[in-house]
Amino acid sequence: MRATLMYGPGEVRVENVPDAHLIEQGDALVRVTRAGICGSDLWPYKSMEPSETGRRMGHEFVGVVEDIGDAVRTVKVGDVVVSPFLWSDGSCVFCKEGLHSECLHGGRYGWDDVDGGQGEAVRVPQADGTLVVLPVDKDDALMPSLLTLSDVMGTGHHAAVTAKVGPGKNVAVVGDGAVGLCGVIASKRLGAERIILLGSNPDRVALGEELGATDVVRERGNEAIERVRELTGGLGAHSVLECVGLEQAVETALEIARPGGAVGRVGIPEHDVTPTGVAFWKNASIGGGPAPVRAYIEELLPDVLQGRIEPGRVFDRVGPLDEVPDGYRAMNDREVLKFQIEL
Amino acid sequence: MRATLMYGPGEVRVENVPDAHLIEQGDALVRVTRAGICGSDLWPYKSMEPSETGRRMGHEFVGVVEDIGDAVRTVKVGDVVVSPFLWSDGSCVFCKEGLHSECLHGGRYGWDDVDGGQGEAVRVPQADGTLVVLPVDKDDALMPSLLTLSDVMGTGHHAAVTAKVGPGKNVAVVGDGAVGLCGVIASKRLGAERIILLGSNPDRVALGEELGATDVVRERGNEAIERVRELTGGLGAHSVLECVGLEQAVETALEIARPGGAVGRVGIPEHDVTPTGVAFWKNASIGGGPAPVRAYIEELLPDVLQGRIEPGRVFDRVGPLDEVPDGYRAMNDREVLKFQIEL
Repeated sequence: MRATLMYGPGEVRVENVPDAHLIEQGDALVRVTRAGICGSDLWPYKSMEPSETGRRMGHEFVGVVEDIGDAVRTVKVGDVVVSPFLWSDGSCVFCKEGLHSECLHGGRYGWDDVDGGQGEAVRVPQADGTLVVLPVDKDDALMPSLLTLSDVMGTGHHAAVTAKVGPGKNVAVVGDGAVGLCGVIASKRLGAERIILLGSNPDRVALGEELGATDVVRERGNEAIERVRELTGGLGAHSVLECVGLEQAVETALEIARPGGAVGRVGIPEHDVTPTGVAFWKNASIGGGPAPVRAYIEELLPDVLQGRIEPGRVFDRVGPLDEVPDGYRAMNDREVLKFQIEL
Repeated sequence: MRATLMYGPGEVRVENVPDAHLIEQGDALVRVTRAGICGSDLWPYKSMEPSETGRRMGHEFVGVVEDIGDAVRTVKVGDVVVSPFLWSDGSCVFCKEGLHSECLHGGRYGWDDVDGGQGEAVRVPQADGTLVVLPVDKDDALMPSLLTLSDVMGTGHHAAVTAKVGPGKNVAVVGDGAVGLCGVIASKRLGAERIILLGSNPDRVALGEELGATDVVRERGNEAIERVRELTGGLGAHSVLECVGLEQAVETALEIARPGGAVGRVGIPEHDVTPTGVAFWKNASIGGGPAPVRAYIEELLPDVLQGRIEPGRVFDRVGPLDEVPDGYRAMNDREVLKFQIEL
């Protein structure tokens, strides 16, 4: 079968690989119908240690179940399914708490003998704990939005949840990438009164406004901090969604939080250290991390199915598997917000 | 009147200062009957920039109202009162949210023209928002415990609240100082199942066990981290109370938190930067800051009055105002856990 491999910075190729196949009794074999390129895929695209064998890429996909292991009970051949970006058993102590991202028996796509999502098929371990059946046809018009439940919509929602967004809250979203825009959607969905989007890309902030942002702050650094303070009566935002991970973005997020406010971080941290002093002295909390997307799919699914949220709008280019290398390039060059692979 | 001043590292003197007196209509004049030396007073004791005029010290006190300004409504002359370690108006947006430590019109004792608590009397600004009347005689046996409501008990409680302590939780308390021990009391009071105290002073950890610690970890650094993991089935603690502030203590606190756990910080941070990467990757939250003690007094007071908690046990030496300089020395040398001043 064909799948995406990365060999080093800027080196993405679609190549023949061994066909995905069942190994464990709990596996499902999923024929991928759509997949995404994730902002986090751009990190190795920028800085990966060169590899002779290459690294299998992709962790956002939907598809049709083609085969199941003997132990699988909750999905059957022919089901249309979405996978969260991590696989998980659904039964360990963390999964039971809704923290599937910390599953004791889970893992990542594209590592060891688990396929990546940017290919024709994927062996999904722990299928019962991982996959969610979608009550739609594989070509349904909602598919782009349903695909975002695999990562970016759930991740934006996680930022909002850990930033304690709720009715009447002033929210600031740092970052106008796909996750930031999904954070806007999530904040609106959770009842935020004001949603301030910090971003500078004209198309992206315009989409952010359509999706629910009430204000846009195009400045950066200290000027951005000042603008958010002005917009929040001098106090700062109750909830700050950090959807970038770069040092300046994290610092800005901490600075614009209101005393007693909450910062929800989902941007992959550029640095392991954070200037938390500012948060300590104003009693602001810092939460977040890799999103337990599996826990959120059931909550978000009805809103997608009924058209109340349209996170699929973050995809602004669609193409076949062969265009994936150019999709990476275009996303890295910020020509494209998010690339959707149609198989 | 007599009051405590600090002139530089190790330089504490009790001297004559102008008598405390009302200035604003909202002030109360409180004759101090007991006061505390706080662990945070040891920071300037170690590292204060030398001052020719000296700095007025103390922010933990109880006493009797001697005079009130025309605007004061909730306390009257003769009332026995406790003050939180910060004064606050009780009516601003933050006070209404229970975050009195962020009061828009509040401040600290010992600064500008507000007296410090380690003296014979204090002008308390915003008396209606600040003071809480105690339904006991000024010489009541409960007074040491009631005095802790001014800071250390409320601060330990804040650590527990921001670390999300609750029934059935495994809790780790980093630090066997007065705040750490109050964190043990607070954790037990909030229903924690297991309370692991990290500390190495034999007398203090013994007191911690009497107050509710179920386990003691005397190791530090990586060994302490290993021990806590062993005690928590390899997972770490749901709730971690950071009651020290030194770099290694903060790092240990983040390391021993369980995935999805919460760290509540009340130790004054030695550094403004924190290695938050470890928390991010396991979705642990970091909260805390200067405790909104005023908000907690009413919640904790009944438990003190009915003897359900005995935070006054953290005082292991009592002396008159003249012994305050030696009290600082003894606390700094770790001879004394916490010094109580009886006037």
